[in-house]
Amino acid sequence: MAPTGSARTILSGQDSLRDWQESLYKDFHRNPELSHQEVRTAGVVADQLGEFGFEVHPGIGGTGVVGLLSNGDGPTVLLRADMDALPVREATGLDYASTVTAVDDAGSQTPVMHACGHDVHISTLLGAARLFAEQREAWAGTLIALFQPAEELGDGARGMVDAGLAGLIPTPDVALAQHVLVHPAGTVGPHAGPFLSMADSVRITLYGRGSHGSMPHLSIDPAVLASMVVVRLQGVVAREVQPGEFAVLTVGRIAVGAKSNIIDDHAVLELNIRTYSRPIRDQLLAAIERIATAESAASGSPKEPEFEVYNSYPLTDNSAEATAQVAGAFEDYFPAGAIQDFGRQTASEDFSDVPTALGVPYTYWGVGGTDPEVYAAAEAAGTVSALPANHSPMFAPVLQPTLTTGTAALVVAASAWLGRG
Amino acid sequence: MAPTGSARTILSGQDSLRDWQESLYKDFHRNPELSHQEVRTAGVVADQLGEFGFEVHPGIGGTGVVGLLSNGDGPTVLLRADMDALPVREATGLDYASTVTAVDDAGSQTPVMHACGHDVHISTLLGAARLFAEQREAWAGTLIALFQPAEELGDGARGMVDAGLAGLIPTPDVALAQHVLVHPAGTVGPHAGPFLSMADSVRITLYGRGSHGSMPHLSIDPAVLASMVVVRLQGVVAREVQPGEFAVLTVGRIAVGAKSNIIDDHAVLELNIRTYSRPIRDQLLAAIERIATAESAASGSPKEPEFEVYNSYPLTDNSAEATAQVAGAFEDYFPAGAIQDFGRQTASEDFSDVPTALGVPYTYWGVGGTDPEVYAAAEAAGTVSALPANHSPMFAPVLQPTLTTGTAALVVAASAWLGRG
Amino acid sequence: MAPTGSARTILSGQDSLRDWQESLYKDFHRNPELSHQEVRTAGVVADQLGEFGFEVHPGIGGTGVVGLLSNGDGPTVLLRADMDALPVREATGLDYASTVTAVDDAGSQTPVMHACGHDVHISTLLGAARLFAEQREAWAGTLIALFQPAEELGDGARGMVDAGLAGLIPTPDVALAQHVLVHPAGTVGPHAGPFLSMADSVRITLYGRGSHGSMPHLSIDPAVLASMVVVRLQGVVAREVQPGEFAVLTVGRIAVGAKSNIIDDHAVLELNIRTYSRPIRDQLLAAIERIATAESAASGSPKEPEFEVYNSYPLTDNSAEATAQVAGAFEDYFPAGAIQDFGRQTASEDFSDVPTALGVPYTYWGVGGTDPEVYAAAEAAGTVSALPANHSPMFAPVLQPTLTTGTAALVVAASAWLGRG
Amino acid sequence: MAPTGSARTILSGQDSLRDWQESLYKDFHRNPELSHQEVRTAGVVADQLGEFGFEVHPGIGGTGVVGLLSNGDGPTVLLRADMDALPVREATGLDYASTVTAVDDAGSQTPVMHACGHDVHISTLLGAARLFAEQREAWAGTLIALFQPAEELGDGARGMVDAGLAGLIPTPDVALAQHVLVHPAGTVGPHAGPFLSMADSVRITLYGRGSHGSMPHLSIDPAVLASMVVVRLQGVVAREVQPGEFAVLTVGRIAVGAKSNIIDDHAVLELNIRTYSRPIRDQLLAAIERIATAESAASGSPKEPEFEVYNSYPLTDNSAEATAQVAGAFEDYFPAGAIQDFGRQTASEDFSDVPTALGVPYTYWGVGGTDPEVYAAAEAAGTVSALPANHSPMFAPVLQPTLTTGTAALVVAASAWLGRG
Repeated sequence: MAPTGSARTILSGQDSLRDWQESLYKDFHRNPELSHQEVRTAGVVADQLGEFGFEVHPGIGGTGVVGLLSNGDGPTVLLRADMDALPVREATGLDYASTVTAVDDAGSQTPVMHACGHDVHISTLLGAARLFAEQREAWAGTLIALFQPAEELGDGARGMVDAGLAGLIPTPDVALAQHVLVHPAGTVGPHAGPFLSMADSVRITLYGRGSHGSMPHLSIDPAVLASMVVVRLQGVVAREVQPGEFAVLTVGRIAVGAKSNIIDDHAVLELNIRTYSRPIRDQLLAAIERIATAESAASGSPKEPEFEVYNSYPLTDNSAEATAQVAGAFEDYFPAGAIQDFGRQTASEDFSDVPTALGVPYTYWGVGGTDPEVYAAAEAAGTVSALPANHSPMFAPVLQPTLTTGTAALVVAASAWLGRG
Repeated sequence: MAPTGSARTILSGQDSLRDWQESLYKDFHRNPELSHQEVRTAGVVADQLGEFGFEVHPGIGGTGVVGLLSNGDGPTVLLRADMDALPVREATGLDYASTVTAVDDAGSQTPVMHACGHDVHISTLLGAARLFAEQREAWAGTLIALFQPAEELGDGARGMVDAGLAGLIPTPDVALAQHVLVHPAGTVGPHAGPFLSMADSVRITLYGRGSHGSMPHLSIDPAVLASMVVVRLQGVVAREVQPGEFAVLTVGRIAVGAKSNIIDDHAVLELNIRTYSRPIRDQLLAAIERIATAESAASGSPKEPEFEVYNSYPLTDNSAEATAQVAGAFEDYFPAGAIQDFGRQTASEDFSDVPTALGVPYTYWGVGGTDPEVYAAAEAAGTVSALPANHSPMFAPVLQPTLTTGTAALVVAASAWLGRG
Repeated sequence: MAPTGSARTILSGQDSLRDWQESLYKDFHRNPELSHQEVRTAGVVADQLGEFGFEVHPGIGGTGVVGLLSNGDGPTVLLRADMDALPVREATGLDYASTVTAVDDAGSQTPVMHACGHDVHISTLLGAARLFAEQREAWAGTLIALFQPAEELGDGARGMVDAGLAGLIPTPDVALAQHVLVHPAGTVGPHAGPFLSMADSVRITLYGRGSHGSMPHLSIDPAVLASMVVVRLQGVVAREVQPGEFAVLTVGRIAVGAKSNIIDDHAVLELNIRTYSRPIRDQLLAAIERIATAESAASGSPKEPEFEVYNSYPLTDNSAEATAQVAGAFEDYFPAGAIQDFGRQTASEDFSDVPTALGVPYTYWGVGGTDPEVYAAAEAAGTVSALPANHSPMFAPVLQPTLTTGTAALVVAASAWLGRG
Repeated sequence: MAPTGSARTILSGQDSLRDWQESLYKDFHRNPELSHQEVRTAGVVADQLGEFGFEVHPGIGGTGVVGLLSNGDGPTVLLRADMDALPVREATGLDYASTVTAVDDAGSQTPVMHACGHDVHISTLLGAARLFAEQREAWAGTLIALFQPAEELGDGARGMVDAGLAGLIPTPDVALAQHVLVHPAGTVGPHAGPFLSMADSVRITLYGRGSHGSMPHLSIDPAVLASMVVVRLQGVVAREVQPGEFAVLTVGRIAVGAKSNIIDDHAVLELNIRTYSRPIRDQLLAAIERIATAESAASGSPKEPEFEVYNSYPLTDNSAEATAQVAGAFEDYFPAGAIQDFGRQTASEDFSDVPTALGVPYTYWGVGGTDPEVYAAAEAAGTVSALPANHSPMFAPVLQPTLTTGTAALVVAASAWLGRG
């Protein structure tokens, strides 16, 4: 399989980076920023890349940062990390837990947390970038380190593309990225073909008639209407989608009213759907519209509901060849048992918008972030599903070997193209 | 019936007040303040009372204001108005519509509107106070004008009582108050016995398990749980309360999640119940607890729900004698057809906390605020229930004869005790 | 008050009837018959009336029986009982419990039970008829004993009217009837004005698409559709009817499918509504149609639902004068405490179809049937509502003093017109 | 691939069978019998097998029939058909449509229909049996034609095993069976590995409290309870099962009450679940129990629900080797395009209970039954899912080429073992 001599040389300096990388990680974790607000994070990233000797392009598509490290003739590899955090109130109890709040798009103050592990992505990519910069003799070609904003909104990658990314960088031979997931720290999971789902969000505004809470007969109650829609929607995946087809329909947000005793005149639902096929996606969207419209009629609504589709994510469909090349390198480098099949993921990513726009192959893999002993105990108890997952207020990747493994994975994967052998 | 010669004398100056009162009303309407934040409003009230010659006690129970006008020996009458507005975004399109926002208790910026008509109450009580002050020869005794905060939270009257109201004022012979309602402007509606319901709010926190929106199987979905509770609660009034018993159970607020693609770990429901009997009230509270607890079990919740009862309002049970005295004076003063039976109201009030604490009789009546032609047309079309009611973003009492009638009603009612005949 | 000397005379023979009446009652209870199938019951009734000396007209409107007893000049009083039983499997454990089954209209074999107490009505009216026949010297006029079929379907009284009842009997001065209810045996409850509600049944056929149970995606699931309609309907009384208005919407029957693994292509719901006002009735019917239609649309039904209104019952609105006359006689005859206000009942009756067709006043009262000690204990424990009510498989009036009191009530009430004083 | 010379010889007589086979099919279709009531059908089958020269064993496990045809040394092949029909009212409008009714286990008269196509299975197996009997020179070995009862209840195959099937027949080398499905007639669909799901039915009895329909407050309404359970259950597949996992939870039957105006004291739900994995099956069963129990608590039920698991079906997991052998023969015999991948089916079968009990490999394939032009039009219109599927009242396989293809498939498949080459 792929020889990983270059990677081993580049990674020989990894031990000396450990303290720096952990404190960098904790700093990012303590200072999470919402999508498109990654100003401080992007600043730290740009400073670090500059110190390593990269040619730095900040402010691409808002807060996006691109670093270029040219090291003679050879292939070009793009490594990507995402920088944004989530409006979640951290409940991990970590000593480096976030206590930060920010104003969201709706103008509300909200707690913010790196609940999806993007801080792991930034820290490991910065670690890999530094290692490549420190060991230039071990490889040849060009390394592109891309840090994108707003993955959580699905428009951060597209924003960098729209801002002219293609004109800024040489066309890479391959684009690579990774995500920390609920698997034992120390493991990595490459996966050929569809790996992450398509995703779309739908905002539904349902119309009732406001009244005082004591006069329901004068109102058309949006709380009952919204609840019936949520309940009714459960039948779509349960009864309308062919059994065994992948389809998720989540109602992530319900917002009705401001006070117990005022019946509001509308309700807002925010849904998220996940599919691996466009016909199923279209089936879900049609069912959502059919149900919300009919439930509004059942309530006697004065007005048909409104629908807004947003945060649409592409399918992440890993190149067979690129995945084989990465997997081969992983098998050569990592100890037996470290390569695991993480399986098709229900999550979505906008990473592929970059290679798709550039017309280049890509692969995207998982990196374990859960304490291996905790994971093993949960597996034995059949409670893996109860472990705090991405986006949970309790999501807390164990520092090590998560950071070390994530950094190594990036170096080993990129070296499969850039390495001198 | 009751002779209203005094009242007619006192009201003889009403025409000259009209412009002042309308512009006062518009000023209050343009500058609504949330409960316990009625600083500007209370300031205007205190200034005006002072100008009329009242002995003014501001800052009672927060922003409460009491004005005393002693005019020789005679009975003591307490007239009361409430000053707070609601977190509602005004949609009336009036040229004096509110565009004001404020920070609510939860720390969120919210639009504010006088959607319950308390601006009518303040303006008419100030008008009546000024008229009594200007025509002292026509009456004898003591007039107490009480302006309370936070009626919408149910604790404004109690706050003034707790702040020592009893020690500040002579014990009145009667306490009187009124509310603008969806009836033709120009009409008044006295009602003996129970007139306004008991009310309680209940905040339910339901617990799920957070996860990414794409991984429902790792979550316990609070959106489904909250919706099922709302749906289930409809069965309480529909199936558990004896048919014909008065009982209202409104879910005014549902708050689940912040984003479409994050499954939150809890949901909050805010309910409001209205009853005319304590056993029914207790039955509703028990059913709410039973249902939320069992639905949490149906979801497999990690934790039982939590319940908080707040904004509890007493029953408004008008004194038969005081109501007869007021109704007699109204019949003597107002033209035929102006006295209408507004019927038992589903709304609630904390007004009675003041007379109950003082141990004195009270009566509370309704005043029409809807354009009589609009009301007549709606009545003919059978669409009265579609008229914008109190707490609606479209609630807009017609200026006149609402203000004139409300002012007259206060003067005529108080004169039934204070008048010289 | 009304002198009840005549009634006392007529009732003087009551003790000697007791064994005969109890065994008659047990015979009816053991041999219940479904609506329009009261052949055996009507036969026993006709035989008995014949034996007492009544002029007997059997087979009026199917199984209806009318008995006439002319006793000189004087008023004419119509006493009415209903004869049909219900498709309920008796669970009382009584030694005279029903084990009878019958074929219902749908062609199914069903258990049958006198779960509504019509056996009490027949037995007490036969008892009263016999007493009047045995004591002709104590009264004057004409007694009409009418035994109607199919009260449970709401068309038994109308059927007798349509079959020419008016031409068969002299026009009565008053029509009287009673019903055994969950009150202490020994009590009677006259009530002026509206006493029993209007009622209508609605059969809704909802259309889905059949499929194998393993292929939900090929079906439109009528089980989910029917359940959503039932759930949605709870909001009608809870949110759409003015609080405090009397309105009941019961779904008594849901029938979907025949096997666990076949998805049927339709569902049937049978609803029953109760109101005291035609606008509320019409509001309920409109809401039912709106909701079933919209829920069908939410399911993507291939066909709009069908609605059939049946078993419509009139309002039972007791004549003020007739009720006063009956109540006065009751007060004169029964011991203190026996007259109780049973309150407005949620049940319905087609009794009034007879006096309405004849253009005569009527009154209808309740008779207690619950063991007084059991009732008192339940009242003390606050569990009256848990006592087995009419139509329950556990409904079992205590033999005495139910039969004695019911018989006396009929005699005393009729004697208020027929008595010689 | 497999040479099908023998099969071609055996099938050379197929044309002359056509009229006989079609009239046989129509006779079965006109005379469907419920599970375990297949007396007439089994009689026809046994007669026919006897006429063909088979050794006939009737009455195995009730109405099961086994026919043995020994034809010298060679392999033994078991071909199986199922004989029972369904309680469905036929709506095909065919001139040979069923108008038959029967008394089901619950004692009710029900219409019966071959809505699952077992009449196709019987007719094609009888056709194949006759062809093998008529062309003994073309093959060698033993043919077992097994006709089982009660596939629809999942206990017909087990019943034959329990009745001593193993002692009655030589152990086969392979067991083969087929099912007519919604695919173009003329096509066949072999499938290695899991082909049909596990299935279990669950009967839930929910307890309420009976009352008259007009007194909901005295009842605990089983219609609302049952509906809430059905609605709640939709969340199990939608939210609790991992996305992409095969899981079906169908509520095939809801039975509540007998009349619109009686609130019954219980409700019955009959559910059917389909899975390909035991953990998912157990997860569904646990969720069903959790939800029905908690919803009963939410209703304040007097008693916990009862659960009965019945009609449990095994996984149909086709032998890789046997399937390859059959598929090879099909490819050799049928024209290009006739072999289609029908995909994993959501249905279940108890067929595998026979080979599992005998310890022999098996394979089970699909046979198209839909008019090819109708299917092609539906495919073009994207409405295949709207074609009448198995268990639909409209299910009507087109006579030809369904019967011809099904017969050929059995002959070709069996000849892959029995053929002389």
